[in-house]
Amino acid sequence: MTFIPPLDAMFLASETREHPMHVGGLHIFRLPDDAPADYVQSLHQRLLECTELAPMYRRKPSWPGALGAVRWTDDEDVDLDYHVRLSALPRPGRVRELLALVSRLHATLLDRHRPLWEFHLIEGLDDNRFAVYVKVHHALTDGVNAVRNTLRMLSPASTGELRALWSPGPRPTLALDTPAGATAPLARAGALARNLAGVLPTVAGVAVRGIRNLDAALPFSAPRTPLNRPLTGARRFAAQSWSIERIKLVAKRYDATLNDVVLAMCSGALREYLRNEDELPSRSLVAAVPVALPRSDGDGNAVTMVLCRLASEVADPAERLARIQASMLAAKDMMRGRTPLQLSTIGMLTSIGPSGLNAIPGFAAAAPPPYNVVISNVPGPRERLFWQDAELEGWYPVSMPIEGQSLNITVLSYGDNLEFGLIGCRRNVAHLQRLLGHLEASLAALEAA
Amino acid sequence: MTFIPPLDAMFLASETREHPMHVGGLHIFRLPDDAPADYVQSLHQRLLECTELAPMYRRKPSWPGALGAVRWTDDEDVDLDYHVRLSALPRPGRVRELLALVSRLHATLLDRHRPLWEFHLIEGLDDNRFAVYVKVHHALTDGVNAVRNTLRMLSPASTGELRALWSPGPRPTLALDTPAGATAPLARAGALARNLAGVLPTVAGVAVRGIRNLDAALPFSAPRTPLNRPLTGARRFAAQSWSIERIKLVAKRYDATLNDVVLAMCSGALREYLRNEDELPSRSLVAAVPVALPRSDGDGNAVTMVLCRLASEVADPAERLARIQASMLAAKDMMRGRTPLQLSTIGMLTSIGPSGLNAIPGFAAAAPPPYNVVISNVPGPRERLFWQDAELEGWYPVSMPIEGQSLNITVLSYGDNLEFGLIGCRRNVAHLQRLLGHLEASLAALEAA
Repeated sequence: MTFIPPLDAMFLASETREHPMHVGGLHIFRLPDDAPADYVQSLHQRLLECTELAPMYRRKPSWPGALGAVRWTDDEDVDLDYHVRLSALPRPGRVRELLALVSRLHATLLDRHRPLWEFHLIEGLDDNRFAVYVKVHHALTDGVNAVRNTLRMLSPASTGELRALWSPGPRPTLALDTPAGATAPLARAGALARNLAGVLPTVAGVAVRGIRNLDAALPFSAPRTPLNRPLTGARRFAAQSWSIERIKLVAKRYDATLNDVVLAMCSGALREYLRNEDELPSRSLVAAVPVALPRSDGDGNAVTMVLCRLASEVADPAERLARIQASMLAAKDMMRGRTPLQLSTIGMLTSIGPSGLNAIPGFAAAAPPPYNVVISNVPGPRERLFWQDAELEGWYPVSMPIEGQSLNITVLSYGDNLEFGLIGCRRNVAHLQRLLGHLEASLAALEAA
Repeated sequence: MTFIPPLDAMFLASETREHPMHVGGLHIFRLPDDAPADYVQSLHQRLLECTELAPMYRRKPSWPGALGAVRWTDDEDVDLDYHVRLSALPRPGRVRELLALVSRLHATLLDRHRPLWEFHLIEGLDDNRFAVYVKVHHALTDGVNAVRNTLRMLSPASTGELRALWSPGPRPTLALDTPAGATAPLARAGALARNLAGVLPTVAGVAVRGIRNLDAALPFSAPRTPLNRPLTGARRFAAQSWSIERIKLVAKRYDATLNDVVLAMCSGALREYLRNEDELPSRSLVAAVPVALPRSDGDGNAVTMVLCRLASEVADPAERLARIQASMLAAKDMMRGRTPLQLSTIGMLTSIGPSGLNAIPGFAAAAPPPYNVVISNVPGPRERLFWQDAELEGWYPVSMPIEGQSLNITVLSYGDNLEFGLIGCRRNVAHLQRLLGHLEASLAALEAA
């Protein structure tokens, strides 16, 4: 039995039916050329025989007392048949049907009486493909560790050996892109905050720096938009790949980082989306950008947040990118030299804190949103990968909206692509699919500008 | 905006992730002979065009204040695409895969920001069949009304006209079997209890009668069994049809009601199940048997409960049936002459009340269970029915386990069959499928005795 660190525990404590606190991944695989008709079904059977589980996949929460005393216990009798599920797409089995299924699966809560993960094999995808959707509670892992864990079942070449996500074994040594959101390790964050005592002075410090630096986004200063209405339980998911080469060329041309260009794509897309809804605010949208902290080999969360003004009120795409660059530089400058305690508490306040406060009836309606949208960039593998004999064609992150923040855009680098996964509240982001077209238009505008 | 009656509101208030408070139905249809490959897909498309909704399917709860003030509001912009879903079974598409899917779908909570129902079309069922799984919140309807509502979309002959479950229209006049659990209308229950003031004297009265009559089951006197462990969120569902003719022959032979024989089948099956687990208690299991009250044309709940000793400790099947008959007669005798207020409050205490109390940590562990299992008998149509041009082959109720009561057996009469739907907690009733075999053996033993 082990204690759950406070940040991880907050992901459990603040979970409601309106905001399940799990993160996921959607993987699209190509069937091998000679795959029999029951390939996926027999894969499912063989996975059910992988009954040895790494510790993370055996952990379930227990509640012996107050919040501070939440613990992980080891489930010694994991019901693998519950966690590893076989599903199928209805005809005609396009990516559209796949996204609809993932939207539904991602909206349901994990069972807290069991280890907090599900693994879905999905057959019936057109063009000789199949899919895997994985869902893990955020209390167990953040996006970076989720990617690392998934790498365990993958290899750089087709192989006869089947490895299960949950099988014990060392983390692979595959090359990962450096976190695009962070220019350099910000601090050593081996020990997470053990209490909230240091929070207020730190946040006050951030606020003072923010006032002195107009490019830095202050917490609680974002405009109100439909994205910040109270969250409902249903979800919409959309996914698409963009070539890293294209984005790199734009970055080079404007002397920006890859992440700056991703933020500019999102800003342009959100500007267009909100304009079409006649809801574009006159002040800039504010994005929360998770930044990975240097991490040990453990699981759990090692992430903080910076806030970035997206310059969404600016019509010119080049000017918008320049302002985003300035805002990100200011944010990183503000973070430099902070202690791990300060960084993780800032992260807590800007991400989980408000969502906790929003659970208080009337808070979301009364207080301005701390930010409008979460845009996250997770480093992934540079090599093309295989699961057994099936090539991994696409790997899309499925993150989570939280109360008052109805949209999350998470980007993962895989091979030559940046894989965008957009997850939103079904009611508040009713035309979420349109954002894919707007993202492309936004990148094209930067190329043409 | 209308107030929600207290019993209906309690189904909302006492709902948690461990016990979703919705009821459902699984319908198996035969595809017409000339059905094209996209029959189910095109049915889905046409259903999405049925945008006129009867009031019940537009209702969503709103929470302006305390429990007493819970209201229904009318959703004027129902997102039909959310409620009406197309799914598919993985290969090989047997009833086994269907039951696995229904187990999963039934375990997820309804979104309270929307009208509280889902309608799932399921393709890929073998033997030229398809299925419909419907899920409606118990605050909107009880089992009897759910059947009546479903009849709206069905007709006694194949027809070219497609009727949607949610379309407005009068209730059909098809013949329904009389509720097998009730011998005669017990009382006029037009107005449900508006407060709990009259509860305690009524329950005390029941207890006194119970003490004087040893055949009557007292509340809070059931033995502890694995069925009464704390509920988890995951479910198992099993379903099977039995010929009414067979059951009627047994009933006639023992001068019992059809419902007595159903209870005896369940008792024998549970006895065998618990014996195999080495968990059969020496005292009799107690079943809660919902009894329909005379009802107006409205929706909502009009049900109370009687408790029945199942004589599960008795080895002889004929003797077991005789004891069940005696216990049911005593229970009905106890109910006679009670006012609607008394009947509905008894129902509340024996069904929802304990589950409310069980939400208090430690209560379930400290107090003996009020009963061990719910066995419900819902009257259905005597005629074979069609949905448009597809014949309805099977119609299985999917009810709900509640905290401390991990198994619910609901039986529906349809045509020449009694359709058994067994829904249980996946952990506490780990071998639920085996109950089907035990039910058959139990009926056969009564035939042979």
